[in-house]
Amino acid sequence: MLTYTLRKNDKKPLYEQLYTAIKADILNGQLKPGEKLPSKRSLKDHLGISIITIEAAYAQLADEGYIVSEPKIGYFVQNIAKPAERPDVKLPIIKEHEKAVQPEAPMVFADFTSNRADTELFPFSIWARLLRRIISENPDGLLEKSEGCGIYSLRAAIAGHLSGFRGMSVSPDNIIIGAGTEYLYGLLIQLLGHDRIYCVEDPGYSTIERIYTLNGASCVHAGMDEQGIIPSVLSEKKADIVHISPTHQFPTGITMPVARRYELLGWAKEAEGRYIIEDDYDSEFRLGGKVLPPLFGMDGGDRVIYMNTFTKTLCSTIRISYMILPDDLAERYHKELGFYSCTVPNFEQYTLAAFISEGYFEKHINRSRLKYLKKREALIQGVKSSPLSSLVEINENDSGLHFIIKIKTELGDDELCTALLEKGIRIDPVSKYCTNDKDRFLHSFIMSYSDISPELIPEIILKLNEFML
Amino acid sequence: MLTYTLRKNDKKPLYEQLYTAIKADILNGQLKPGEKLPSKRSLKDHLGISIITIEAAYAQLADEGYIVSEPKIGYFVQNIAKPAERPDVKLPIIKEHEKAVQPEAPMVFADFTSNRADTELFPFSIWARLLRRIISENPDGLLEKSEGCGIYSLRAAIAGHLSGFRGMSVSPDNIIIGAGTEYLYGLLIQLLGHDRIYCVEDPGYSTIERIYTLNGASCVHAGMDEQGIIPSVLSEKKADIVHISPTHQFPTGITMPVARRYELLGWAKEAEGRYIIEDDYDSEFRLGGKVLPPLFGMDGGDRVIYMNTFTKTLCSTIRISYMILPDDLAERYHKELGFYSCTVPNFEQYTLAAFISEGYFEKHINRSRLKYLKKREALIQGVKSSPLSSLVEINENDSGLHFIIKIKTELGDDELCTALLEKGIRIDPVSKYCTNDKDRFLHSFIMSYSDISPELIPEIILKLNEFML
Repeated sequence: MLTYTLRKNDKKPLYEQLYTAIKADILNGQLKPGEKLPSKRSLKDHLGISIITIEAAYAQLADEGYIVSEPKIGYFVQNIAKPAERPDVKLPIIKEHEKAVQPEAPMVFADFTSNRADTELFPFSIWARLLRRIISENPDGLLEKSEGCGIYSLRAAIAGHLSGFRGMSVSPDNIIIGAGTEYLYGLLIQLLGHDRIYCVEDPGYSTIERIYTLNGASCVHAGMDEQGIIPSVLSEKKADIVHISPTHQFPTGITMPVARRYELLGWAKEAEGRYIIEDDYDSEFRLGGKVLPPLFGMDGGDRVIYMNTFTKTLCSTIRISYMILPDDLAERYHKELGFYSCTVPNFEQYTLAAFISEGYFEKHINRSRLKYLKKREALIQGVKSSPLSSLVEINENDSGLHFIIKIKTELGDDELCTALLEKGIRIDPVSKYCTNDKDRFLHSFIMSYSDISPELIPEIILKLNEFML
Repeated sequence: MLTYTLRKNDKKPLYEQLYTAIKADILNGQLKPGEKLPSKRSLKDHLGISIITIEAAYAQLADEGYIVSEPKIGYFVQNIAKPAERPDVKLPIIKEHEKAVQPEAPMVFADFTSNRADTELFPFSIWARLLRRIISENPDGLLEKSEGCGIYSLRAAIAGHLSGFRGMSVSPDNIIIGAGTEYLYGLLIQLLGHDRIYCVEDPGYSTIERIYTLNGASCVHAGMDEQGIIPSVLSEKKADIVHISPTHQFPTGITMPVARRYELLGWAKEAEGRYIIEDDYDSEFRLGGKVLPPLFGMDGGDRVIYMNTFTKTLCSTIRISYMILPDDLAERYHKELGFYSCTVPNFEQYTLAAFISEGYFEKHINRSRLKYLKKREALIQGVKSSPLSSLVEINENDSGLHFIIKIKTELGDDELCTALLEKGIRIDPVSKYCTNDKDRFLHSFIMSYSDISPELIPEIILKLNEFML
């Protein structure tokens, strides 16, 4: 039987300790390909840990292709050198991200391409307490089917939050709750039409274009100047709907000035059926400078669709996003798409409603903002005060969870990223997000720092200096 | 301040008691239009109940249009006779289902059009206990982003369940978890293509057609004979994909015999890119007769997409469904759509995984089947042993949570349903679900009994007799 010493008070959770120990034994050959792992129940008794810990470790190992599950029989060690050929075991399909888990893959200790919320910030104990309270106080509410657009108290709590936080006057009836922004994009296309032309920012977050295309809509690009997306291109490309992030554009970091906002609203009003989708995804993390009000509301409320998510502010596994529709679209939504069941479970809806209305969300945002600000400053100061500073230019903006650095280098963008990856630092060039005009953004890199551990920053700066100088 | 006596041990939950009391006061004029309701906090102290109870009651009243929320100010009594004209309050959009909440609307005590799971059956305390355990034992697992297709341990648990329950041999890697079947249909269209022709059963569950159409796909209909959908029509209508429920078709109740299944598989194999979507939505509730294995697996595994949901077996607010893709589609899914985040929160995924793998799901299914069987027999026996029996013919089938009754009547189908609604019984005719050939199913009605209270069955039989004789 596998025997490992696992420490309850270790920084690493038990399941990760178990995962690491078993993985090491597979890699060093202690566990041979084809060997059966102990059953969860026997390992539980043997090591004195819970089934769920073992399940999590086995699941992670299986996810990464180290072991394979044979239903009702058990888990077997995979031949990681070449795919096993045991005919009785159905091999998992090797997915793109699993291919990276070859022993020779570099170990990444700083991932500047992840825009995940810092999980350490998530107020888990408060969330768990609210969830427990809701389970015991309102069991009926949890089982009753909610409205398709989400439970009223959550929509009311969001309206209240937006009123205080963004100065927005929104009726809960115009809010549609859904399991993530990706899902809401799909609903929007159903509402606005597959035959319309959707325009996205170039450079921009490529997943948005991918979703429009996968949903059968035509997607065109409009370039950016220093104020954001260029309105004249919208008419040229016959766009009907434009999808923007005026508070903090990804990847350029541009905050769209008021004049450009009015230009865009002017474009929208010029013809029937034109809409602006305002993706306000990290407006909560404005870290300095003046806050501009959202486009939603600037137009009298009929041409802007506002979207935001709790995935970035709370935790990426709590998949709750929302959109706010102008009155006419809201009415049409309830009539034509109102039959769709809400994709967020009642448990999470009630918990989030309580979390917001009892003031925890605001506290959490403030605490997070402070922590992100510190992280950002440590990074920027680290670069500026090191020899590296002569080679880089930092475009700070005042907003959001990423900034741009421009590096003086002879290397191509991909070359530089590959070489940095060897040092354990994963970073993306802005040019990766460009459809046209890649050259304009050459040697600019995106520093998404939300998921970086602050204690690693000195090492990151050291490695960057070693590498560049 | 509002003063009501609420009873903790009453059958009705506190929030419903409070809701009923306030609603009564609005209807009888004790509470006047425009009047402000007490703040939740003050009412909490006054009545000695929790904020969440008050929130639930206020939310329900607001949902139904009795009160309206003015963010940051409070709740106000609506003028339910005519919409309020207070210019400072933004009125909620009146939705279709809210229009029904006029005082003169008939009170429905038996709704045979609801296919909701019986919420009394849901093992709430076990679910809550598992959820609590998972919160305390695996907090890290809850915050780590899961794979887009769902966490491994849930997919493995589903594979195990299907192996035992349906004799299916499925790899967890072919399973995709999503927040409800409606959501999965959308993903499937993205995977199979918007330019394909999707064929649905006629009569059939109209929402499926609606979703295909809303997603921009062409949808055609194929009629049914006594064995199910007619294969020759598929070729005639140039269908690429056919969506069926061979275990228990809605609404006809037909179970497709083996010969017809092979005919359909033959159709699928005739040309590249043809697929059968097998919606096995209530296979767990086969209440007698022999169980046929699913189409998935009969074909060697390359032309059938299997779908099922926990919404019907557990609870409509736990929105977890899954689909099982043939290998080639699974591979393409992971490559092209694998970037989508899973729409089900980790909390629910881990809880369901434990619920299945620790044997609670199987117990729950068995208990539910017994209770549904009793309900069904009480209904059928009630009809058969009453004078009504001479006027009706019951098509029992052996399966699922609805059956069909054919009524000898001079009334038109809509006329009969409207008249029954006046007596508090809501029922749908089969003809409502027909696109063509409505006459063939004239005077046939769908008895979906899952959400009917057993203690009301005698009254239902009485009312039906009074009405028909």
